[in-house]
Amino acid sequence: MPIDLRSDTVTKPTAEMRKAMYDAEVGDDVFGDDPTVNRLEETAAEMLGKEAALYVSSGTLGNQIAIQTLTRPGDEIILEQQSHIYLYEGAGHAVYAGVQTQTLPGVRGAMSLADVREAIREPNIHHPRTGLICVENTHNKAGGTILGLDHLRELASIAHEHQIPIHMDGARLFNAVVASGHKAPAFTQHVDTVQVCLSKGLSAPVGSILAGSQEVIERARYIRKRMGGGMRQVGVIAAPALIALTQMVERLAEDHQNAKILATGLAEIDSVQLDVSTVETNIVIIDVTKTGISSVELVDRLRTEGVWCADFGPGLVRFVTHKDVDRAQVQEALAIIHRVVRGVA
Amino acid sequence: MPIDLRSDTVTKPTAEMRKAMYDAEVGDDVFGDDPTVNRLEETAAEMLGKEAALYVSSGTLGNQIAIQTLTRPGDEIILEQQSHIYLYEGAGHAVYAGVQTQTLPGVRGAMSLADVREAIREPNIHHPRTGLICVENTHNKAGGTILGLDHLRELASIAHEHQIPIHMDGARLFNAVVASGHKAPAFTQHVDTVQVCLSKGLSAPVGSILAGSQEVIERARYIRKRMGGGMRQVGVIAAPALIALTQMVERLAEDHQNAKILATGLAEIDSVQLDVSTVETNIVIIDVTKTGISSVELVDRLRTEGVWCADFGPGLVRFVTHKDVDRAQVQEALAIIHRVVRGVA
Amino acid sequence: MPIDLRSDTVTKPTAEMRKAMYDAEVGDDVFGDDPTVNRLEETAAEMLGKEAALYVSSGTLGNQIAIQTLTRPGDEIILEQQSHIYLYEGAGHAVYAGVQTQTLPGVRGAMSLADVREAIREPNIHHPRTGLICVENTHNKAGGTILGLDHLRELASIAHEHQIPIHMDGARLFNAVVASGHKAPAFTQHVDTVQVCLSKGLSAPVGSILAGSQEVIERARYIRKRMGGGMRQVGVIAAPALIALTQMVERLAEDHQNAKILATGLAEIDSVQLDVSTVETNIVIIDVTKTGISSVELVDRLRTEGVWCADFGPGLVRFVTHKDVDRAQVQEALAIIHRVVRGVA
Amino acid sequence: MPIDLRSDTVTKPTAEMRKAMYDAEVGDDVFGDDPTVNRLEETAAEMLGKEAALYVSSGTLGNQIAIQTLTRPGDEIILEQQSHIYLYEGAGHAVYAGVQTQTLPGVRGAMSLADVREAIREPNIHHPRTGLICVENTHNKAGGTILGLDHLRELASIAHEHQIPIHMDGARLFNAVVASGHKAPAFTQHVDTVQVCLSKGLSAPVGSILAGSQEVIERARYIRKRMGGGMRQVGVIAAPALIALTQMVERLAEDHQNAKILATGLAEIDSVQLDVSTVETNIVIIDVTKTGISSVELVDRLRTEGVWCADFGPGLVRFVTHKDVDRAQVQEALAIIHRVVRGVA
Repeated sequence: MPIDLRSDTVTKPTAEMRKAMYDAEVGDDVFGDDPTVNRLEETAAEMLGKEAALYVSSGTLGNQIAIQTLTRPGDEIILEQQSHIYLYEGAGHAVYAGVQTQTLPGVRGAMSLADVREAIREPNIHHPRTGLICVENTHNKAGGTILGLDHLRELASIAHEHQIPIHMDGARLFNAVVASGHKAPAFTQHVDTVQVCLSKGLSAPVGSILAGSQEVIERARYIRKRMGGGMRQVGVIAAPALIALTQMVERLAEDHQNAKILATGLAEIDSVQLDVSTVETNIVIIDVTKTGISSVELVDRLRTEGVWCADFGPGLVRFVTHKDVDRAQVQEALAIIHRVVRGVA
Repeated sequence: MPIDLRSDTVTKPTAEMRKAMYDAEVGDDVFGDDPTVNRLEETAAEMLGKEAALYVSSGTLGNQIAIQTLTRPGDEIILEQQSHIYLYEGAGHAVYAGVQTQTLPGVRGAMSLADVREAIREPNIHHPRTGLICVENTHNKAGGTILGLDHLRELASIAHEHQIPIHMDGARLFNAVVASGHKAPAFTQHVDTVQVCLSKGLSAPVGSILAGSQEVIERARYIRKRMGGGMRQVGVIAAPALIALTQMVERLAEDHQNAKILATGLAEIDSVQLDVSTVETNIVIIDVTKTGISSVELVDRLRTEGVWCADFGPGLVRFVTHKDVDRAQVQEALAIIHRVVRGVA
Repeated sequence: MPIDLRSDTVTKPTAEMRKAMYDAEVGDDVFGDDPTVNRLEETAAEMLGKEAALYVSSGTLGNQIAIQTLTRPGDEIILEQQSHIYLYEGAGHAVYAGVQTQTLPGVRGAMSLADVREAIREPNIHHPRTGLICVENTHNKAGGTILGLDHLRELASIAHEHQIPIHMDGARLFNAVVASGHKAPAFTQHVDTVQVCLSKGLSAPVGSILAGSQEVIERARYIRKRMGGGMRQVGVIAAPALIALTQMVERLAEDHQNAKILATGLAEIDSVQLDVSTVETNIVIIDVTKTGISSVELVDRLRTEGVWCADFGPGLVRFVTHKDVDRAQVQEALAIIHRVVRGVA
Repeated sequence: MPIDLRSDTVTKPTAEMRKAMYDAEVGDDVFGDDPTVNRLEETAAEMLGKEAALYVSSGTLGNQIAIQTLTRPGDEIILEQQSHIYLYEGAGHAVYAGVQTQTLPGVRGAMSLADVREAIREPNIHHPRTGLICVENTHNKAGGTILGLDHLRELASIAHEHQIPIHMDGARLFNAVVASGHKAPAFTQHVDTVQVCLSKGLSAPVGSILAGSQEVIERARYIRKRMGGGMRQVGVIAAPALIALTQMVERLAEDHQNAKILATGLAEIDSVQLDVSTVETNIVIIDVTKTGISSVELVDRLRTEGVWCADFGPGLVRFVTHKDVDRAQVQEALAIIHRVVRGVA
């Protein structure tokens, strides 16, 4: 069995989740008849400190619905240049919402407030209207870093001043919650909408939550249908999703500890560059440019040895810890990586 | 317990489906790692006589992906004026594919071939390009009617002559298959893509199949991701979907018999207008304009009495038979409807 | 010299217009500096009874900007099935505004009020939102027919009841004005925006006006820029356009008389079908199916003989009278057409 | 009379251009009947070394049509982060073409070839497809700098390797031509399409040219119609545009000399930052952060004194030389600017 550190998206449903699917009370959710998804949405709204929530089949769908809900065509959205929405969603916001992106460089995932302020467009017949600011928390490409409460508060203050809404891609928001010790609403109070993935560290088989005001979620529900996101007996996947949300959050701490152990061990390899202090949650990104082989090649060699990880752009390799890799496997992976990287020389 | 004849979308998963979910072998389908969905897609492609198939979370998603795959912005699609894509998909094709609809009146769901021929636009700088023809089989608003093989063959011949692809919204194609005695490929050979719902009569909790050539489905898979339709441990819903596809097709005959019984019984009510001979599958639409009450009101009264059905536009009420309503319940529903409609007078 | 009855778009600028171009006071209109276009827009707003007006380079641009201004993606617009916006604007509304069309059959260009009422969608998660009603006045494909004031008043009443705006494609509105004796505001008071072509019968070389409320036109001006419709020293074409608007309206009566003469003469040909009473303005459409040749062929033969006209779909030929064809030429054209059509037999 | 250095778009038509308008032979260009625009397009194609050309009403329209012609929705276009298409076209490419932008920092307007190479996306289900590279020559925000032939050749080589087309926003290409001494085709041979403005330094009242292969321009002509860019008796503006193209190119040298004089004079002001060697054509951008007043305020004060220029973002002021500002006026402007800036202290 490989040790699969490619992503926390690979987590498989627990036995309890499978049982919940088996037992799920279901109905036709397009008619609003599915009691399980209704319960999931209420629970999620409450946990996220928002009036309402919507279950969607993926994080990308949640993000794209939020963008369509909060903007109009010809708007510009400001977001960090390494954010998932910009890099990995197939330009969906351009195709489906007709909005342009203005990307800003981040430090550990956070755009500078001065940059954001400057990026907001003056009203002018040549300009797109700045219609939305997006943040990602935790920030994947920055290595699972947390956008802090102070940063979010100040960002929100700028946004409100210009009447611009904020959407948080909180695919891994609960990692930030567990690592910081702050409740989710401490983060989400500063944004209009938040998307949270249930199928990453929380281990549900399928789905994400989009939360916001009653009015926004009502419109989002309409757009979800138009996007083909309306499903029928949703309870069968909402049931394990509900377990993910209510019983799987605290255990993320374990993934964070494993990530720290992994990072510490990787940093011991001379040719690997990594600042362990930047590992705040369950993601470890190492710079392998000094190892003598490319990230693509390293990922391939490790795969052969039973350690799966992800090429993360030139010179970078990403490892993500999660429920299905335990402490012993992390240690085993470390040993293999040490051996492989040293073998290069 | 109400007798729910609103739609066959309300069908709940069988015990066997629930067990299949419980036992499903899963993986991360975005990485192509889910063996169950892979098996589902292979099976579906074979049953539908196409090179490849794609599992999607809804029929609307399947239709909208097909349109985006087969057209380019500024195209016009020709389709029957009561078709689902035109009436019930939130104008998704306009928002997401940028295409215009040219709607043609149908007879029992079938556009006239002469009309189609005339509807194809001449190349001209003022005109949209005719980019796609869509058909619906069985046709919901026409009362579950079947588009016959001869009609499809001739339509395809016109389309090919003008190099225009055809997409079939086959949400209920297997009802046509069972009722006609023809295999699915007899129908689908005439079209480029077909979408088949697994969560209607076939009773899977969630999902549809889009099938077509290898090349088309590869592009469709890409667009599915952009639409937010990529899911993770899809096996948990692909497993019951596989049962739907492989074990639930033949039993649709029972729904058809029940629909015939229901139709025959409804036709006995003087004030109800219905030509029983038009009931070919599992849908019965009655005209209630002579009953003295509106369709909205009749639906409400029946609901109070425990029979759920759907207002289907001015004067029309729709009943759909399915797995979760048995012969006895159909009889009981009939008795109630007789009583309620007569009570109006 | 051919007698060009293809369209009133072929009208050439008058000597006075050419002089106005030569003398035009100009500035950079993107900076709002062009005094001539400013004067044109003020004059047009006043003549059309609206707060504000915008000069655009074509009728299609005016219509498409209006649609983008008044709708949001996913809306449905209701319009007559033979209207220019639907037939001849390259599906621009789908590509650029993301809206779906619901087309209704018209009688002499007018949709039935009952049909419009029924076409307005109920709020429902499956439905596009009815976002706009479009009318065309005079109606080109119906033969230059006029939508009367009563019809417009009642249509507006339905629209207001549902809070749906109305856009009038008034490419030939001044033909309706002159033929009916009503001032333009009598027509435009019932609609939110109106587009009027200056380059058809009014003979300006280039351009149309879009008029509406201050707020709507401000947004339209923004969208015009985004559509690439912002121009620089516009005065050179605004100057003749101003002459078109202020000095060329009354003379349309002459075109109408010529159309009547033409129609009367054409109706005398046995094999030509035409109800002269339907010729209200400057357009004459004849049905040539009984002549023994197709409309395409007839148009070709007449072209050889020096009479240019337009194939207008199977069996139909259109003639449009205008400034550059005088009474004598109409008579000459008639003689030629008589000869050619009779020669067929 | 103010000395208007805001932009070369303010140039007014010459007496000869006005005469050409007066005398222009015209026809209905939608029917292809306008001999003057036909001549303009042929001349432009030849001068730009392309098979075909299309007259459009603005540079923005030319750019947006090129993007729609060369890409498909969901593509990503690579362009310099200060380019006109990205900053000043109202996000048109997102609304109308559904494409995402990837912006790269430029040095004097040129993206680094290494950056471009890295910016091209690998095929991956998460990624937009890299569909187009755009360059701007001369580059407005960089101060009218020229993209050299070597740079373009290498860029084209990268693009061809990946089968990605290149569009050149050559709004001021003829400034590059005159300043460099290279003919236009030396630049345009490296790109698939080029847009050239006739209403900037070349002084035509209205319009731009889009040039490319026969096939591309045929499609562009179709899209122009859909964008509302089809006009009627276009000859009246094509005639002066033809003069702009054939008689006004060489005189741009004078604007360049004036810009050099202006730059040299401005650089003498201590608090003004400007490297005179960067002034290659007719644009001078100064940094006024050390003057003690903001760019907005400086622009305002100069306006009061009769010198019009443009605020060009925080701390930056732009001056553009052109036909309607002669040597003496440049000197006068310089004197005024010296006085105003020194008066600040």
